[in-house]
Amino acid sequence: MKFNLGQKNTINTIKPPLRFIAVGDGVTKNLSIYEYGDDIIAVDYGIGFPGVDDVGVDFIIPDMSYLVENAHKVKGLLISHAHADHFGAVPHLLKELNIPIYANKITQAYIKSMLEEKQFKSIRENVKFHLLDPTVGEIRLGSFKVSAFGVNHSVPGSLGLVIDTPEGRILHIADFKIDPTPVLDQPMDLNKVKELSKDILCLVSDSLGARTKGAVPSEKTLDHTFPTLFSKYEKSQLFITTISSNISRMYQIIDAAVKAGRRVVPTGRSIDKSVKIARALGYLPFSDSAFATLKEARNLTPDSIVYLIAGCFGQRGSALDRLSRGEHRDVYLEEGAIVIFSAEPNPPGVDLDVEDVCANFVLAGAEVIDHTNFDNLHVSGHGHREELSKIASIVNPKYYIPKGGSIVQMHAYANMIYDMGVEKGKVFELQEGEVIEFMDGVAKKGERLEVHDQYFDGTSVSPIVIADRRLLSQDGVFVVIVPIDDANKEVFARVDVVTRGFIYVKESGKLVGEAKNLVNSLISKSKGKNQDWGALKSKIEYSIEKYLHKETGRSPMVIVHGAKF
Amino acid sequence: MKFNLGQKNTINTIKPPLRFIAVGDGVTKNLSIYEYGDDIIAVDYGIGFPGVDDVGVDFIIPDMSYLVENAHKVKGLLISHAHADHFGAVPHLLKELNIPIYANKITQAYIKSMLEEKQFKSIRENVKFHLLDPTVGEIRLGSFKVSAFGVNHSVPGSLGLVIDTPEGRILHIADFKIDPTPVLDQPMDLNKVKELSKDILCLVSDSLGARTKGAVPSEKTLDHTFPTLFSKYEKSQLFITTISSNISRMYQIIDAAVKAGRRVVPTGRSIDKSVKIARALGYLPFSDSAFATLKEARNLTPDSIVYLIAGCFGQRGSALDRLSRGEHRDVYLEEGAIVIFSAEPNPPGVDLDVEDVCANFVLAGAEVIDHTNFDNLHVSGHGHREELSKIASIVNPKYYIPKGGSIVQMHAYANMIYDMGVEKGKVFELQEGEVIEFMDGVAKKGERLEVHDQYFDGTSVSPIVIADRRLLSQDGVFVVIVPIDDANKEVFARVDVVTRGFIYVKESGKLVGEAKNLVNSLISKSKGKNQDWGALKSKIEYSIEKYLHKETGRSPMVIVHGAKF
Repeated sequence: MKFNLGQKNTINTIKPPLRFIAVGDGVTKNLSIYEYGDDIIAVDYGIGFPGVDDVGVDFIIPDMSYLVENAHKVKGLLISHAHADHFGAVPHLLKELNIPIYANKITQAYIKSMLEEKQFKSIRENVKFHLLDPTVGEIRLGSFKVSAFGVNHSVPGSLGLVIDTPEGRILHIADFKIDPTPVLDQPMDLNKVKELSKDILCLVSDSLGARTKGAVPSEKTLDHTFPTLFSKYEKSQLFITTISSNISRMYQIIDAAVKAGRRVVPTGRSIDKSVKIARALGYLPFSDSAFATLKEARNLTPDSIVYLIAGCFGQRGSALDRLSRGEHRDVYLEEGAIVIFSAEPNPPGVDLDVEDVCANFVLAGAEVIDHTNFDNLHVSGHGHREELSKIASIVNPKYYIPKGGSIVQMHAYANMIYDMGVEKGKVFELQEGEVIEFMDGVAKKGERLEVHDQYFDGTSVSPIVIADRRLLSQDGVFVVIVPIDDANKEVFARVDVVTRGFIYVKESGKLVGEAKNLVNSLISKSKGKNQDWGALKSKIEYSIEKYLHKETGRSPMVIVHGAKF
Repeated sequence: MKFNLGQKNTINTIKPPLRFIAVGDGVTKNLSIYEYGDDIIAVDYGIGFPGVDDVGVDFIIPDMSYLVENAHKVKGLLISHAHADHFGAVPHLLKELNIPIYANKITQAYIKSMLEEKQFKSIRENVKFHLLDPTVGEIRLGSFKVSAFGVNHSVPGSLGLVIDTPEGRILHIADFKIDPTPVLDQPMDLNKVKELSKDILCLVSDSLGARTKGAVPSEKTLDHTFPTLFSKYEKSQLFITTISSNISRMYQIIDAAVKAGRRVVPTGRSIDKSVKIARALGYLPFSDSAFATLKEARNLTPDSIVYLIAGCFGQRGSALDRLSRGEHRDVYLEEGAIVIFSAEPNPPGVDLDVEDVCANFVLAGAEVIDHTNFDNLHVSGHGHREELSKIASIVNPKYYIPKGGSIVQMHAYANMIYDMGVEKGKVFELQEGEVIEFMDGVAKKGERLEVHDQYFDGTSVSPIVIADRRLLSQDGVFVVIVPIDDANKEVFARVDVVTRGFIYVKESGKLVGEAKNLVNSLISKSKGKNQDWGALKSKIEYSIEKYLHKETGRSPMVIVHGAKF
């Protein structure tokens, strides 16, 4: 990230602008920065999920360099809710910057659970947590005053933020919906929102649902779903999969299970962790006997338990995926088992994985219950157009910044706002690194920051490595080994080739042979010409790439390696 | 494919079974084989599309070996309709087996167009085409008698097949829907189907829509869509993208364009080819002035043309994709351009690509019109549950074989049939290579054939190469070069490492150094022990894999290469 020095030039008598920086934009990988003079607060620091081309990447974290470079200014990090795309990168940030964390109890519990990992051992003890929820009132952070109000979402205790700045008040409402009858939370208090919405400078709003008409049905509409399923399949082995952080869904499932006389077996690390955290905080007020461990389940009949199992998006290696392939160590899938998906429709990019898992279940003789053959199995956690526009008109801000949606969804949000009669130019659709500066009630785009994602594959991994994997995955690798006598810089004539993922060598002896001949002839020609190895290497690379493409139509990564002796 | 010798043992006095072999199953890559004694007919020979793990693969073709090995038996290949997943691999088969092709005019035109490719030059002249459509009556192919009837689908002239065999009559209805008011075809004649359906042994039926409730709306429901769009955006630069083989959609678009005073510019190879074929066959009866080439379009105002553009599924490298990235050679995207998708909802696996393309358009200042903000933009070519069950009950066969669907869709078809009251066991859900034998009116599963897909990446590519690419794409490659003196089999001490896609070498000097030390120490230890190079090589590979995984958590492909001198 390039450091923007703009504000350093302001002399004391001239007041600085309020800056909003969209560092990690898009649907996931959330990070928003508010800066006023010498004060910075950040909202959310979540992980992102790899795109189609991010080969072998587990997750991505937002660029932290602006925060690290301005460490002396940073007053705190506020987390809106307990979803990994909003808090899941916090421990990685804390390794570089010991910043106070403001979050509700459940988010704190998830972060603390991450900090138990070995890689965070050194920082574990020094993290400073502060409670942020509607009960704590106003928190002063430098020039900012922050308070929180409740919104509905698919994890309990989700927060909207009121951020008072010297330039005016911002309402920052990350992921939300309006649910008049939620299962665990209170309904979102629209009067409270109205009351807070006096002279709002800017509404920063969820926009994920901006392309979907109407409103999301209430969680309440699922009340009869699970009792009906337990009764319909009362003799069957039962598996229910849902999003691991959806604790209100878990409540509905466990409640129905208890009433149907089945004990709930949390299956898979993420579900197990969520159940533990939610029970510790009182969100799942069921007795111990409502649950059974995988070990206990072995001695219980299939019709006396229900597996609450992780992997509803078909994630490779998840408990559900392993079960579907008959590779789960502790659970044996019975013929006629019922597998219920309480999570669809799927987010983009997972449909083939879900299809794979379902196919495995069908082949194993299980029946899959999902939105195609059973109603009311899931409701989204993100408000649709009706809710997004309702909040927009209650808040009635001067400016709008859509967040938490794709470029297309943010654009649909902007169109929705303009269709409501708002003057063009009042909605800022921001890409990663883009900056809005507010000054005397007027907003304009500032100089964009250069932002670099950080990739993780076990540990941090360089973008160059990712780019190489992308190349390797397409047409493989073709390594030409040229032995060089280090002493007298002489090239031996006998070159060697190692190739994988390009052609089947056993059937391509001729091609490899011709390639070697080509290299040998280039080396012979160069002899006595005093050509340096670097130049010869480039020439060989170019010629081999050209030759291989001509012969096969493919472009493997060609590496010419001078092996010195 | 393993040759099944079963029927060779039958002596002449014992009649053989009728065998149905599902070679290329699933949604695409269609090939069905019917065999009776010394006679074989095949239905469809289409391409399949690569799965998530088929790295760098362009397309897949069904295993042709059963046909090639039984070449003397093969009487003909029947093609149901002009979609690439039903005919697109025919030229590859013809290279190995000059088999008579029975197809309607439009399918023949597409196949002939493929045969124009350089790679098929040698076979081009010798292909024997025969017309297959409802007008030609019964065709005798060995023990089989075949005739065709019209069905509705998203390409004109699609056929259902009546296959009379010594064991009874089969109705083979590949992709279809029932459209009472199609745009180009006649409505599917259900009375005709009823008339043909006397004593049906088996219905082989499309099953793709078996998980979707209700019936597909008629193509007619789109009649007002394009006139409305042309009128709404009468001043704008307009792009409409649809499936390249959907000629009836093209008719609707061109008809509306002509009436709105815009000339149609076919853009992209596949659209261009379809327009040419459809016009030659009279499916698009518009005058030359209804069209403009890309070259002509340069001199026309944006509001006097409409681009009919290929790439509705966001295919990389398609005309639409290049346009969205500002990389189309002949078309310049104007600010405020309108891009209309007449193809959604998308098939599995393409949503991220479509999202990418749409994001590019939004960033370029264009507006995307799709099912989220405009109604009646597309109807599917595949019947839903209502149509599938209607045909099933009209045909009322003894047995059912769902085809053309995923494992989960075929299973939903089976459940649908059983829900209609059909006795369990009458529906055969077949995986690739599975065989049904019909004998005296009774069907049972035969011995499954081993089936191997053939992958294409420009040219044919080995599955071993694909597997290597998969590995390379995950954690890269780590090549250890060990120089060996070929004369006295001595290993030099100085080893070398080449790695890509694993770690960023500039930051990992220590790791590479330690790996080299490890190899050197293994070599030293082996000295004097008379250990052969193969054993030492395996030992080095194993140790390096273990070491790298321990240090990084990653498992690159480790190649130990002995470079001989």
